[in-house]
Amino acid sequence: MPISSQGNSTRGSINEDEVRRFDATLQLPILRYQGKGTEEVFDYLVQELPVTIYSNGLEMVSLLCTPEYLDELALGFLVSEGFLENREELESVQVDREKAQVCVKIRRSHTSAEETFLKRYLTTGCGKGTSFSLDKLEEFKQVTGQLRLTPDQVLALVSDLQERSQLFKHTGAVHSSALALPEKIILYREDIGRHNAIDKILGWSFLQGEVLHSRIIVTSGRLSSEMVLKMARAGIPVVISRSAPTALAVKLAEKLGVTLVGFARGNRFNVYTHPERIYME
Amino acid sequence: MPISSQGNSTRGSINEDEVRRFDATLQLPILRYQGKGTEEVFDYLVQELPVTIYSNGLEMVSLLCTPEYLDELALGFLVSEGFLENREELESVQVDREKAQVCVKIRRSHTSAEETFLKRYLTTGCGKGTSFSLDKLEEFKQVTGQLRLTPDQVLALVSDLQERSQLFKHTGAVHSSALALPEKIILYREDIGRHNAIDKILGWSFLQGEVLHSRIIVTSGRLSSEMVLKMARAGIPVVISRSAPTALAVKLAEKLGVTLVGFARGNRFNVYTHPERIYME
Repeated sequence: MPISSQGNSTRGSINEDEVRRFDATLQLPILRYQGKGTEEVFDYLVQELPVTIYSNGLEMVSLLCTPEYLDELALGFLVSEGFLENREELESVQVDREKAQVCVKIRRSHTSAEETFLKRYLTTGCGKGTSFSLDKLEEFKQVTGQLRLTPDQVLALVSDLQERSQLFKHTGAVHSSALALPEKIILYREDIGRHNAIDKILGWSFLQGEVLHSRIIVTSGRLSSEMVLKMARAGIPVVISRSAPTALAVKLAEKLGVTLVGFARGNRFNVYTHPERIYME
Repeated sequence: MPISSQGNSTRGSINEDEVRRFDATLQLPILRYQGKGTEEVFDYLVQELPVTIYSNGLEMVSLLCTPEYLDELALGFLVSEGFLENREELESVQVDREKAQVCVKIRRSHTSAEETFLKRYLTTGCGKGTSFSLDKLEEFKQVTGQLRLTPDQVLALVSDLQERSQLFKHTGAVHSSALALPEKIILYREDIGRHNAIDKILGWSFLQGEVLHSRIIVTSGRLSSEMVLKMARAGIPVVISRSAPTALAVKLAEKLGVTLVGFARGNRFNVYTHPERIYME
């Protein structure tokens, strides 16, 4: 069975794992706040890419993933969903890194399980490119909220989130998120899903008629592209996380006007985009 | 606008937050290993429930979530997806906790955005119950792999996973997972998605013809119901995580024959199900 990987050329003496690692991270300039000062440094961010998996020419799914070992990802997805059972069924796997596509050929026609699964997706032939929603960024309005806060306020909000989550820390299995003003947290919510915790906050805000363009979201969860799109759609100008953003999340936040703060813990945090909303007293 | 919440009765002097908290966690007996001994203790696990959201009688989505603030979750989801914009559009929200349904009534007919979204889902009327895949547990074969390992082997595998993830710890935004024998890790993979990291391992195993019923998965990620179903389908008998499982994940692992080990850090771990695969030397 041929497994080919276009665009993944060998690079002199760098070993294969280093090459894959190189593809999986991106170095970006960020503003690091620590103690009482800031410095511009370069930070490594993990790549996040929408990769589309095709089986016998049918588009099965687009996954947001770290772009390494894409052949394994595609096969594992098909195996997990029950669409691929025996090694003998597999004809070939082709990774096209530039188009972010994996095309799997299987020696049989589609099953009813696949057809049920595919009902949920638009199908296009292999090679036509993905129909991922990131192509539709122009549908998003720029976030223009003028809210500003100081570094101390950033750290106080994160510390408050941490205290509230420890109050409820029986289970260890939830993400915590809060809606906040620069001075204080207004609402605290938690859920096993990062997105659900934010949705609960957005639902409460909808009922209360909250003016989100002057509000902050503080969260324990990692900042993926989907999280940033959710915030931008809601008009929230500042998002602060205890965890890391992905490179794609940073790119989207930059374009959409969202201030992204990550790794906010203790007396430090990183500002990835739109630092104009964080001001020194 | 009436917001009703059936089955969420007031309970004497307990305040509202305590009631919600009560609903969101479940106490279960577990086996706790620490140092050189084990003890049976009760532990709090977070509830995970498939909740179905209906908009004007049409089934929009089933979300796996922590079952509190379900009215907010439903409204936040609809707002996030762009299906609900103004407070005036909202007629009512009804939470039925027993059926795990939220029915939202909106003062307008469905939009083309909703219809596009709904194409991906089977639609059933409000009140007919969810079509979530957990109803189809009988499709899953019992996991019967006879592999066994000692407490020291559990701790050594987790420590090895931790070391490997620190090697690559530039970005802080990935989940790490490994395929292992009791004695050692065979394969290490990481991804921004918990599921993707496991899929990469399953894809590699498929290509290598690995016999998964005598293999272990070690992961940094939380163990949700979907993670357990993925392992059970692959026939993996032991899953070890540095993080916590949900109550639903434990229930499924119990039924499907998977040994679930959580909170494995330092010199301790919890065994939630099928402890017969962990043996004292």
